[in-house]
Amino acid sequence: MPERVRAALIGAGRIGQRHAATLAREIPNAELALIVDVHGPSAAALAAKVRCDRWSSDPDDALDAASIDAIVIASSTDSHAPLIVGAAKAGKQIFCEKPIALDLDATDRALAAVERAGVSLQMGFQRRFDKAYAKAKQLIDEGALGRIEAIRDTMRDPSPAPRAYLETSGGLYRDMTIHNFDCVRWLMGDEATELFAMGSAIVSPEFAELDDIDTSVVSLRFANDSLGVIDNSRRSGFGYDVRTEVFGSDGALMIGYARDTPMLRLDANGIHSDHIHWFLERFDQAYVDELKVFVDGIIAGTPPPVDGNDARAAMALAYAAEASRRENAPVSPARFARA
Amino acid sequence: MPERVRAALIGAGRIGQRHAATLAREIPNAELALIVDVHGPSAAALAAKVRCDRWSSDPDDALDAASIDAIVIASSTDSHAPLIVGAAKAGKQIFCEKPIALDLDATDRALAAVERAGVSLQMGFQRRFDKAYAKAKQLIDEGALGRIEAIRDTMRDPSPAPRAYLETSGGLYRDMTIHNFDCVRWLMGDEATELFAMGSAIVSPEFAELDDIDTSVVSLRFANDSLGVIDNSRRSGFGYDVRTEVFGSDGALMIGYARDTPMLRLDANGIHSDHIHWFLERFDQAYVDELKVFVDGIIAGTPPPVDGNDARAAMALAYAAEASRRENAPVSPARFARA
Amino acid sequence: MPERVRAALIGAGRIGQRHAATLAREIPNAELALIVDVHGPSAAALAAKVRCDRWSSDPDDALDAASIDAIVIASSTDSHAPLIVGAAKAGKQIFCEKPIALDLDATDRALAAVERAGVSLQMGFQRRFDKAYAKAKQLIDEGALGRIEAIRDTMRDPSPAPRAYLETSGGLYRDMTIHNFDCVRWLMGDEATELFAMGSAIVSPEFAELDDIDTSVVSLRFANDSLGVIDNSRRSGFGYDVRTEVFGSDGALMIGYARDTPMLRLDANGIHSDHIHWFLERFDQAYVDELKVFVDGIIAGTPPPVDGNDARAAMALAYAAEASRRENAPVSPARFARA
Amino acid sequence: MPERVRAALIGAGRIGQRHAATLAREIPNAELALIVDVHGPSAAALAAKVRCDRWSSDPDDALDAASIDAIVIASSTDSHAPLIVGAAKAGKQIFCEKPIALDLDATDRALAAVERAGVSLQMGFQRRFDKAYAKAKQLIDEGALGRIEAIRDTMRDPSPAPRAYLETSGGLYRDMTIHNFDCVRWLMGDEATELFAMGSAIVSPEFAELDDIDTSVVSLRFANDSLGVIDNSRRSGFGYDVRTEVFGSDGALMIGYARDTPMLRLDANGIHSDHIHWFLERFDQAYVDELKVFVDGIIAGTPPPVDGNDARAAMALAYAAEASRRENAPVSPARFARA
Repeated sequence: MPERVRAALIGAGRIGQRHAATLAREIPNAELALIVDVHGPSAAALAAKVRCDRWSSDPDDALDAASIDAIVIASSTDSHAPLIVGAAKAGKQIFCEKPIALDLDATDRALAAVERAGVSLQMGFQRRFDKAYAKAKQLIDEGALGRIEAIRDTMRDPSPAPRAYLETSGGLYRDMTIHNFDCVRWLMGDEATELFAMGSAIVSPEFAELDDIDTSVVSLRFANDSLGVIDNSRRSGFGYDVRTEVFGSDGALMIGYARDTPMLRLDANGIHSDHIHWFLERFDQAYVDELKVFVDGIIAGTPPPVDGNDARAAMALAYAAEASRRENAPVSPARFARA
Repeated sequence: MPERVRAALIGAGRIGQRHAATLAREIPNAELALIVDVHGPSAAALAAKVRCDRWSSDPDDALDAASIDAIVIASSTDSHAPLIVGAAKAGKQIFCEKPIALDLDATDRALAAVERAGVSLQMGFQRRFDKAYAKAKQLIDEGALGRIEAIRDTMRDPSPAPRAYLETSGGLYRDMTIHNFDCVRWLMGDEATELFAMGSAIVSPEFAELDDIDTSVVSLRFANDSLGVIDNSRRSGFGYDVRTEVFGSDGALMIGYARDTPMLRLDANGIHSDHIHWFLERFDQAYVDELKVFVDGIIAGTPPPVDGNDARAAMALAYAAEASRRENAPVSPARFARA
Repeated sequence: MPERVRAALIGAGRIGQRHAATLAREIPNAELALIVDVHGPSAAALAAKVRCDRWSSDPDDALDAASIDAIVIASSTDSHAPLIVGAAKAGKQIFCEKPIALDLDATDRALAAVERAGVSLQMGFQRRFDKAYAKAKQLIDEGALGRIEAIRDTMRDPSPAPRAYLETSGGLYRDMTIHNFDCVRWLMGDEATELFAMGSAIVSPEFAELDDIDTSVVSLRFANDSLGVIDNSRRSGFGYDVRTEVFGSDGALMIGYARDTPMLRLDANGIHSDHIHWFLERFDQAYVDELKVFVDGIIAGTPPPVDGNDARAAMALAYAAEASRRENAPVSPARFARA
Repeated sequence: MPERVRAALIGAGRIGQRHAATLAREIPNAELALIVDVHGPSAAALAAKVRCDRWSSDPDDALDAASIDAIVIASSTDSHAPLIVGAAKAGKQIFCEKPIALDLDATDRALAAVERAGVSLQMGFQRRFDKAYAKAKQLIDEGALGRIEAIRDTMRDPSPAPRAYLETSGGLYRDMTIHNFDCVRWLMGDEATELFAMGSAIVSPEFAELDDIDTSVVSLRFANDSLGVIDNSRRSGFGYDVRTEVFGSDGALMIGYARDTPMLRLDANGIHSDHIHWFLERFDQAYVDELKVFVDGIIAGTPPPVDGNDARAAMALAYAAEASRRENAPVSPARFARA
């Protein structure tokens, strides 16, 4: 095991910039050795900003370099699976933003490559590393809530992503709800055996034009007969909204909306406070900690806490949701199980 | 119109006792003239407690008395429809706890009697009169949230009712969720055109024995394509839980869990507060105000804000939910529309 | 002891109206037998409103009536002491709004009359009966906070009372802070041995014109060396503000600002809620419960939980505060002790 | 002006470690060039941890190095003034933890050296850089609260510092309350003209042994006749407590206690959440931002937002409070003004 992990970052976009800052400055036992972006100037600019000595426009520079221990994939979705396959073949440890691929076959081929190579693949489900969610998981696993009976998970973006993003996003379930699918599987410690999805395109006409939806409710039944519900919107009207409630026989947990600052303003109209506007603020701590866990795991030789099989399972739920919505009938995720 | 409404209360149980106190003391322009309970001693005891001069064990004493303007029905569910029919024929104004009947035909016959007699029938959906819910409705109707896109409505009882109650309750949807069905219809200002219900019996074995459920998620599509979700449990593990969230294009409302007292206790283990344990505490103000509105409406000759058609519509949703759960398929409430 | 307490209310103003409604409707074992106001039409109007059969403009009608068990004094401050003396001589049980008198000698004479007559005198410090404050007192007395070390008590009115009221109010300390003085004595279970008062007239010029103040901070040392601080304002800029914090070796209690409704509104500008605007709303439950305790105490023959000696002690603190402010030096309340 | 600031850190203790991490990793335009601690191994260990190439046990190594632009002083209090004087003579820009010195003469000599040298001196009052406090200051300055009339500022440590620390701390007012003195001066935008301090030693016997106090209330009058109150304790019984309220003619701001995680736990005993336990957690963001502002100011050539005169003024208030407490009389801070 290395004493210090030398990582290459691929993708210098929004989330790539976040990971670059983390790797360059906030993880003592990591070194950001190379930044790659197929758009060279983006790679160069980010490298300058975080004082990384090397940048490239060719991902193979990362895969081929013997001095690189780990690849952090934050490039566009369609590049994830090929990069995972390439990194696995090169024997690199892999961190990849969700999803592996929008396509289940491509996902399975990437997973097979990872398994064959015996490398680690940690997926960027950052919510699992948020202090509140991590504490909730711990309490649930300790039995503090007794038998778990139901979960409510909500996520709303402040406003829709640009149309160009939406066109290749894979749709609401594979792009957005996939975070909730991972979250409910993880917190419940159980698999969904059936779900029913109801969706609407009412936020903006472009969703209907793209044969996509912007508002959704998915109900789920788990193997142990507990129930769940996920509701989403592409536009909240008030900021970023991520909240989760778990109900058990002995009590409940409510992971709530975080105010941006602990300040109330009181005037003749009432009591007012601000709120968090963007996921990068809400999950700032989680984005750092997921990479710390990735780096520590490489050094310790331990498996990642959220891996490619988790990503595969969440994607199967997204497929099931899309099928349920289109067929207007409950669907078993088993229909989309790995062959 | 009378200057003061002389009311007879039928039913001296839990909710009847609440209404008796309200009618006897808290509504200046009402007079509690008679208390009826088929179990005479219960009527007598309640009459003594609220200083009502007359009591009886025969509901006909209320229907036949020319001096009685209004009947408040708080007796067992199976007596609601016959009493409504009798009160309507006697020309009395009627306040009735939900439901009119567990059976849709009986419901329709009672509604027909009310229509023929031209009397008022106000239903006891008390949540509509809670200050927070009433304010939410006002804001929604004023357009403060813009276009309404989604609603989340949750209700959990602190613990299951006794088995004797459950046996004649009509099941979760007709007994408990019916409050949520009324709430979402009312706040959304729209009718559900389709719903899907998923239920489980995991809280206690007696629910399975009764072919009933104790945990449920119902997703709903409204006529304007907005979506809703209702989740229920017969046992919360922490007290009484009634919360509702409405999401619109310009913002959201969250009607939250009410602490019983505005006090925090801080110690080495964290921050602690109490919570409300029972619906009679949570809706104390609403139980008074619904009867004030009923009495004021009689004096003013105005129709009740929540009537038998509302109760009929909520019951149709309950039937649709039960059908959906049993058929494991989405169901249109139109299947249960009034002939 | 009577089975039912027949009470006469003296004073049909704002707080008198509140007490009339309570006595007439909300206390089963009380009867509002007579309403007195020196302005007869006010008495008559209130009597009609709460359906009380008798009214009068002469307080002696209350004191002389053999059928009256108790007198509830809610008239103007200058009438309190004479009415207490008269009621005590007549052997009536007495409930009196604070203060007994603005003058300490008159206060002491009234207390002496009460003691001679052996009647009960309960003072209207309603905060003691608020559910949150009562729970706090219970927790403190049970030792839940360990050794009590400090208290912070704040009260702000939404806006100054009319000038006519202020002119005879006795000034900030005797009129407003007296509620805080009672609160800190009671919660700390200890007597202040020294205090220092700092005041300003900055809210409105009329306070300076009246040689009064509108903003104040009073620091207090208790016998056991714990400390306290009370801050007040005649105008909050945002509604009614009553909050108290108690700090002990093992934790703290924070009795907080009560939202009027448990509803949040979220929009692009943040999170918003309403707040309580007036003390009659904040302490609605306490105003009922203090009279219930008064009535129950008469029937049970038990002494009132807050009596004339408490009012005397709070008034001595008000005198000490006024002296401290004018002398700009710490003052011992012992200077104003009962002879 | 330099494009990048080369800083030497002096002091490798608790707060020095925080600043080292910030300078080494979180400020792109700063470079941590040298770590000094008179205990060499501490300097070496910290240098290794943050990957700083140079360390020393001799502060002169920092003052003498031409390549060093700025000195960050986080060593023991008694070294602050000599280091400020030395750094000023060497023409270095200076960041110094509070206080400059416990002694006013030494403080004034250090300030004179800074003025003569024309260098910047930014003081480590981190609260000013906390997002909530900074937003409050902005709202106050924009006039959102109207005329400011009162401030309440509270600070409690979770538990007393070790006796060795307390012995050289300078006492409660110069060590702890000095943060509050800076805060109220800054938020009020006004100077205190008089204060009265009341203190007790009740938390632990060692405070009395040290002729110190552990619990305090200080009331203040500002030049414009607005009022303030500061309360402190060396031990809260529940965690770290920093809260501030500002009241104006048009409303109020309440900067509140920050939960550590946005999660509620509900069970049969009530609603529970965690809280922040330590100032390094509460002010984590502020500790980073104060150094960013320091570095940016050096590059831009702008004066620091909180300087030696602010530290001097806060220390004068601490002297006045100590005098007031010992003389048991109100004291004007003018008594301790710079000659």
